[in-house]
Amino acid sequence: MTLPVETFFLRPDAQGTLQQQIQQMIAQGILSGRFRQGEKLPSTRKLAQHLGVSRITVTIAYTELLANEYLFAKGRSGYFVSENAPAPPDFEPAAENDDAVDWGRAIGQRFSGGATPSKPQDWAQYRFPFIYGQADPTLFDHANWRLCALQALGQRDFTALTTDYYDQDDPRLIEFIARHTLPRRGISARPSQILITLGAQNALWLTTQVLLTQRRRAVLEDPCYHALRDILSQSRCHVTPVRVDQDGLPPDAIPPETDVIFTTPSHQCPTNATMPMDRRRALLDRARETDALIVEDDYEFEMSFLKPPSPALKSMDADGRVIYVGSFSKSLFPGLRLGYLVGSEPFIREARALRASVLRHPPGHIQRTAAYFLSLGYYDAQIRRMGAALHERRVVMEQAMTDHGLQVSGRGYYGGSSFWMRAPETVDTDHLARKLQSKGVLIEPGRAFFAGDLRPTNYYRLAYSSIPTSRISEGVAMVAKEIAASA
Amino acid sequence: MTLPVETFFLRPDAQGTLQQQIQQMIAQGILSGRFRQGEKLPSTRKLAQHLGVSRITVTIAYTELLANEYLFAKGRSGYFVSENAPAPPDFEPAAENDDAVDWGRAIGQRFSGGATPSKPQDWAQYRFPFIYGQADPTLFDHANWRLCALQALGQRDFTALTTDYYDQDDPRLIEFIARHTLPRRGISARPSQILITLGAQNALWLTTQVLLTQRRRAVLEDPCYHALRDILSQSRCHVTPVRVDQDGLPPDAIPPETDVIFTTPSHQCPTNATMPMDRRRALLDRARETDALIVEDDYEFEMSFLKPPSPALKSMDADGRVIYVGSFSKSLFPGLRLGYLVGSEPFIREARALRASVLRHPPGHIQRTAAYFLSLGYYDAQIRRMGAALHERRVVMEQAMTDHGLQVSGRGYYGGSSFWMRAPETVDTDHLARKLQSKGVLIEPGRAFFAGDLRPTNYYRLAYSSIPTSRISEGVAMVAKEIAASA
Repeated sequence: MTLPVETFFLRPDAQGTLQQQIQQMIAQGILSGRFRQGEKLPSTRKLAQHLGVSRITVTIAYTELLANEYLFAKGRSGYFVSENAPAPPDFEPAAENDDAVDWGRAIGQRFSGGATPSKPQDWAQYRFPFIYGQADPTLFDHANWRLCALQALGQRDFTALTTDYYDQDDPRLIEFIARHTLPRRGISARPSQILITLGAQNALWLTTQVLLTQRRRAVLEDPCYHALRDILSQSRCHVTPVRVDQDGLPPDAIPPETDVIFTTPSHQCPTNATMPMDRRRALLDRARETDALIVEDDYEFEMSFLKPPSPALKSMDADGRVIYVGSFSKSLFPGLRLGYLVGSEPFIREARALRASVLRHPPGHIQRTAAYFLSLGYYDAQIRRMGAALHERRVVMEQAMTDHGLQVSGRGYYGGSSFWMRAPETVDTDHLARKLQSKGVLIEPGRAFFAGDLRPTNYYRLAYSSIPTSRISEGVAMVAKEIAASA
Repeated sequence: MTLPVETFFLRPDAQGTLQQQIQQMIAQGILSGRFRQGEKLPSTRKLAQHLGVSRITVTIAYTELLANEYLFAKGRSGYFVSENAPAPPDFEPAAENDDAVDWGRAIGQRFSGGATPSKPQDWAQYRFPFIYGQADPTLFDHANWRLCALQALGQRDFTALTTDYYDQDDPRLIEFIARHTLPRRGISARPSQILITLGAQNALWLTTQVLLTQRRRAVLEDPCYHALRDILSQSRCHVTPVRVDQDGLPPDAIPPETDVIFTTPSHQCPTNATMPMDRRRALLDRARETDALIVEDDYEFEMSFLKPPSPALKSMDADGRVIYVGSFSKSLFPGLRLGYLVGSEPFIREARALRASVLRHPPGHIQRTAAYFLSLGYYDAQIRRMGAALHERRVVMEQAMTDHGLQVSGRGYYGGSSFWMRAPETVDTDHLARKLQSKGVLIEPGRAFFAGDLRPTNYYRLAYSSIPTSRISEGVAMVAKEIAASA
């Protein structure tokens, strides 16, 4: 490619003659790795014109660089970065100067160093990825997603693609969610009670900002989704973790002063527990007693391939007390970043205003593509396909875990994509995971899901949403072997 | 029973091909429980006749639904709703209830009611849209954007499309910005100093959260981008508005206790003033004196079609004191929601962690599409095309404004897409805008750009980024006429 003339600047404060400055500018471009071998430089005429210097000045500078073998000339076709030019260091070029800023003081609020563990970006390179929440290329309906995306890129959809919705969303996506997605969870909602978010993460974050302050009190399931704990600790509200049992969150353990209760009733994260109907009623009663709100993360309800899912807690909500969080990222792909909030207008109004201030709205093209994928029935077809595949993998997982004597702590009656596992007390699963990773096996240590200082260290999660059936039993065997060695 | 053909109809406002509309109509009928398992669909001939479409269209739609298991075919006797079709919910959606929640108490923080004015969503329906910051379908390179999006949807890019980047970005987009976009502004930055954001709005919001608290002090240009004022007031920091002059922000008016200075040096928003080189040096010196940081919103630098733009303030920053905000939304389309932050690592680290907590990362597909559009040179070509068109419109605007005696307050030496206008003192431009809107003319009242209680009411913005050249002078005449009537 030709290096665009616009990337050449004479610094107002630069030293030396114009010719030297030009030489230096190009040499630095090459040394810093910005200009690469074989790339074409602007013609002397163009560069001279752009910099407002005489053409001869540029010609002399180029000639100098030829002599130093930074450049080479190809007859009439011009000047190129030479392969003999000094190679840029393969480490990142050093900053031009050291900061004079005291960042320790300058930063008003810190957000780094949360509990959310980082997962290997190259998880797909591992042979036994028992990893959670990544898209399996073999299950995703790539072809039809592509068709829908293309259609959403068409001239007829130009407005949906390009317009600034300000604080609004794509009406077609909202309508589909209201008429088809929510009714399947027993929820009826008006468009004004629905807000599209950048995934469930964004929905939970917006909800926390609107409902919680430093003076307010939240109840979290323990264990729970670790990113949610980070969101709440950043909000500086008082957090009470409540240990879940085999039926999920126990209502009578919720303190009287609670303002907001975060729960995953249909499918507890990470234990996979499903809250029975009578406990759901008790939970709603408890919330009414303490005048608390409930934030329901209805996560993975689509993955109910063993039994139809129970209706959402929100469907039993007579008070408008439940705020519902849904997501398409799990069942489509996480990079999609598309979820939604359902709640009473006064709440949605504030969440919408905050979203507008933070990011305006999720990109229109993505909303429209999802609207097509959903309304053309591809989404349901994909869910069925995924369900069938997950069902098959689950059967193989259970057999393998029985064969190798692994202990399942939570399995989920309706389906799901993972098992919550318990190793012997003496096993530290952080350590276990590192050892397994070095052998090509990815598991998720359970520690990060728990609250407090005395967290259990012997739990872990085994997901089967990304591992091929054929590798499951060999992978499970390796986990069992490693546990036996560590115990 | 056979579903009566009369219950099928194509919505007049429906989008997509006829085949997709039919597919969608049937899929939704099944999902909403209107069509039950085993029910017979009308024959392709009957339905085609009824809808007035070709029979093959209906046949293809039915075939697609067969593939997705919504329908099954019984030899000669036709198509039926399949028992494998997704079942509608068997539980009744909850009835609407009045909220028992006291939302006045339940909401911890309010975000609604900001200063940002809402613009008509249907602006494109107006004959004279002197509206700012919307995409002009005649200028946007839709075809090549579509090609790049298609490429980014390909199998080779599956990971870029679907992966959960956690807190990271698409390395290809980052690399392009580092090597090609920033150098054009005289800035050299490492990948670790760049963060992709959901538009400049999101960049400014993240920056505010990281740098400002209730105890810290910010300086804002007055007038300025109104959404920025909302962001700062939500952060509850102390804000000092500093009135700009014809050269932009005057450094000596910045109070000594300032922590963060927000400025638009290359192209002041909304007055279009460009800060001269000596004032930029003075501003950097002033920031050093007061140990303040500078947030540079380098807005519309691509729209410099009269003269090449001056290098960014960040290019003169020896201290790491300047945080740079760039955006692709203005020059591509606002619905894209794609911008970036450039700053020292300690700052970017915190902004990245906050972004991860708020929304994880901007959708991968959009980052990759932009990376292609930029690296294939389509972006530069589009900027040139836009520049030429804006140049032409600007000439016509200036002629018309002279002819009709409109007073320009700020015009921008380098180009841009709008004029900052001053009406006679006696004219209230809020009122003026409403009257003009009823006549098909959209202008932006200036009031919302100013701070404080005694805001000037006689300023307004006339943008030419969305109005066809042919309508400019008639539109300007109407503005002049209305002003004369109001004065």
